[in-house]
Amino acid sequence: MKDFVMCPRFEKAVDMLSKRWVALIVFVLIPGPRRFGEIEGCLSNLSGKVLSDRLKELENEGIIQRTVYPEIPVRIEYSLTAKGTALAPILKEIGSWSSEWVELEPTR
Amino acid sequence: MKDFVMCPRFEKAVDMLSKRWVALIVFVLIPGPRRFGEIEGCLSNLSGKVLSDRLKELENEGIIQRTVYPEIPVRIEYSLTAKGTALAPILKEIGSWSSEWVELEPTR
Repeated sequence: MKDFVMCPRFEKAVDMLSKRWVALIVFVLIPGPRRFGEIEGCLSNLSGKVLSDRLKELENEGIIQRTVYPEIPVRIEYSLTAKGTALAPILKEIGSWSSEWVELEPTR
Repeated sequence: MKDFVMCPRFEKAVDMLSKRWVALIVFVLIPGPRRFGEIEGCLSNLSGKVLSDRLKELENEGIIQRTVYPEIPVRIEYSLTAKGTALAPILKEIGSWSSEWVELEPTR
């Protein structure tokens, strides 16, 4: 294809966002910081092990920030960085599209 | 979590869009209809078998339309339906985010 060039930044973003649970984890952090157990509670079927791995990956990507509050007992919160907050318009568009176009199978 | 309900339509949309190659296939069809070989040519590392499977799935989801032109030799084109075209704003937002935030590793 001579008329088409896929931008490698775009491909990298799609790869990152396509990883299972990533978009949903970012979504639950949009309203504000949450603790591990709160994020886990928002996402049924997500195991603690996978959530822990994804949070580390997202921290390495600069999308999530982990803050430790030296209280007793210690409090740890996860929040979106500026890079993570900038993902909100993507999730908002997915929300609009899904309200308009996604049909759910009837529950029996 | 009592303060949070994940919308099942949103989850279904994220699942669908997260499937490998889906977002990129939709992206290459935004400018207009393409033939199988053209789509394949746009996406390096995508095998013909996987592309064929994805196109069928996207046709079943009502996102892509397959049109057969009874010429000799027969011409088959894939294009976005209204539901598929409505995904464009999501991809546009991913594009904006990636231009601003994604860094590429330097090539050696």
